[in-house]
Amino acid sequence: MRLIQPVIPSPVTELHIGHGLLQSDLLSLCKKFGSKIAVVVDASIKDLFGAPLAQKLNAKLFTVPSGEEAKTLASCNKLIDQLFEEGFGKTSLLIAIGGGATTDAVGFVASIYMRGISLLLIPTTLLGMVDAAIGGKTALDTSFGKNLLGTTYHPKAVLIDLDILKTLPPKEVQNGMAEVIKMGLIFDPAILGATKEKQIELAIHAKIATIEKDPTEKGLRRILNFGHTIGHALEKISDYRLRHGEAVAIGSLAAAHLSMQLGFLPEQEFKKIEKLYPPFSLPSNYTRDKLFETMRHDKKAIDGAIRFVLIDRIGHALEFDGAYCRAVTKEELLPTLDWLEKCSK
Amino acid sequence: MRLIQPVIPSPVTELHIGHGLLQSDLLSLCKKFGSKIAVVVDASIKDLFGAPLAQKLNAKLFTVPSGEEAKTLASCNKLIDQLFEEGFGKTSLLIAIGGGATTDAVGFVASIYMRGISLLLIPTTLLGMVDAAIGGKTALDTSFGKNLLGTTYHPKAVLIDLDILKTLPPKEVQNGMAEVIKMGLIFDPAILGATKEKQIELAIHAKIATIEKDPTEKGLRRILNFGHTIGHALEKISDYRLRHGEAVAIGSLAAAHLSMQLGFLPEQEFKKIEKLYPPFSLPSNYTRDKLFETMRHDKKAIDGAIRFVLIDRIGHALEFDGAYCRAVTKEELLPTLDWLEKCSK
Repeated sequence: MRLIQPVIPSPVTELHIGHGLLQSDLLSLCKKFGSKIAVVVDASIKDLFGAPLAQKLNAKLFTVPSGEEAKTLASCNKLIDQLFEEGFGKTSLLIAIGGGATTDAVGFVASIYMRGISLLLIPTTLLGMVDAAIGGKTALDTSFGKNLLGTTYHPKAVLIDLDILKTLPPKEVQNGMAEVIKMGLIFDPAILGATKEKQIELAIHAKIATIEKDPTEKGLRRILNFGHTIGHALEKISDYRLRHGEAVAIGSLAAAHLSMQLGFLPEQEFKKIEKLYPPFSLPSNYTRDKLFETMRHDKKAIDGAIRFVLIDRIGHALEFDGAYCRAVTKEELLPTLDWLEKCSK
Repeated sequence: MRLIQPVIPSPVTELHIGHGLLQSDLLSLCKKFGSKIAVVVDASIKDLFGAPLAQKLNAKLFTVPSGEEAKTLASCNKLIDQLFEEGFGKTSLLIAIGGGATTDAVGFVASIYMRGISLLLIPTTLLGMVDAAIGGKTALDTSFGKNLLGTTYHPKAVLIDLDILKTLPPKEVQNGMAEVIKMGLIFDPAILGATKEKQIELAIHAKIATIEKDPTEKGLRRILNFGHTIGHALEKISDYRLRHGEAVAIGSLAAAHLSMQLGFLPEQEFKKIEKLYPPFSLPSNYTRDKLFETMRHDKKAIDGAIRFVLIDRIGHALEFDGAYCRAVTKEELLPTLDWLEKCSK
């Protein structure tokens, strides 16, 4: 037996955050990464962002369906055919502009097109900025569930134009804030007291720090799943009518309550956390049985054991000997579910 | 601007070469890499190799269409659905058994299934053993051409059971020998004088050496394209009726002739090379215009310039300042085409 060990250079992604970036830096940035440019935009913001950008860059414009519909192999196949038809090749640059679903899907296409072409992400939702566009995960859905397919593929650059935030409806911002607050609870308490723009920047830096420290998700990076054990399950139970941000908000509150219940988090810390979140409602078809059933089948579960990321103070997730999560029994979780159901409006 | 730089550990692939490996080592090898095993086999060798292997490993058996038909997104989608249906997950192992098309397609599926699950390749053709299964490239075809989609994904192990060679028809072995001889011409002259089994082993080690020295294909790894400039074009012109091995044989002869013609390769070396290959026929619909047109559109061409890997002696490709290939004009190529057409039976 011999080992094959190609030493592959680690990826580098440029992160640009600022105001008016879509107006200023972009052109020079793009020329560096590709000779021929394709702009791919979420169909619902084609006129708002896609067309002006394509015109500015003298690029071809393509659309993908809005939201999760973009995240299928069939939808990717269609985009791929269009790109080949227009002669895009190895030295081309793909720019994705849209929310997390768009950057997930276009990132996937870039990762397999001629075994990988240059990619630039321009997230246009808060959730996209602080979460989906950071970390190099691409994702597609199958009929068996969300995000079950994907690649790890690092874009050449991520461009976060804070001016885009002003175009977002408040509900959209609210949807992204749950991930921002999460980063404050598990990693950097400074996030919680900062101004909105500073919060976003700190949340992004916090996510980058966890990724750089644990790129293969064997330990620390798992803290990013805080709030997602119950959060993902609620999303699924609601058949994705509950938005990701709302689900993570409920899941984070529950994880904080559980942290207190298990004796890790002081009560006065939990009281502070409770105030960070708006009132919430559990999905109308929620039942405890459905919740447990769904959590047991989540890909984060191991051999059916439900695992939670827990905190012992605001800004600090518990290490649990490097696992950064802990198996929780049904009995341990019951008091938290009692509380959660009582709080639901 | 800040940089995101996750340090990703380089991949390690175990290479096992020997006799009777399918009978001996396999079971223990597999248990190390996954808790639940799926065997995916080329439909045409399901009974010969797939079923016995699945039974031995107590694994589920799946088939993919024989040959290139497996290499489409639609075919992969079907396999993916079957795998989810049977509950394969993050800690499962996918074993691909078949020729290069099978390992290319199943490798692709493994690379995107839950963002990558463990993969073991068992090539059953000579071409698969010495070329397709080595180096971590996966590939799918589109209606625009062969191998236009893919990922770079390193299997946990490649298992080469030399006993399988005995099951192959001579034409199949011939098809693989072109890549073996190629490795002798560009890298290791010892390959050419060795026994068949030693040749195979040396050719594999030669390919591994080029990959380890140039994992991102920026230089040395390009020598693997020796014989492929004309080879790929002939395959395409023939609409893939000409087999890859036959095409590479003709392409290698042409590249050697060109190396002599341009004054790099001594004539007596070329004469030796000529004797390594059986007589050949150009595709019936071959014309010079078609050849040039196809070569210009190949993904190895840069801005329409046709590039050749050239040698200055048996076992040594020319470096050309680290490019390991050289642009060749139509005029430079004409004497070689005269010769090639004259030789064609």
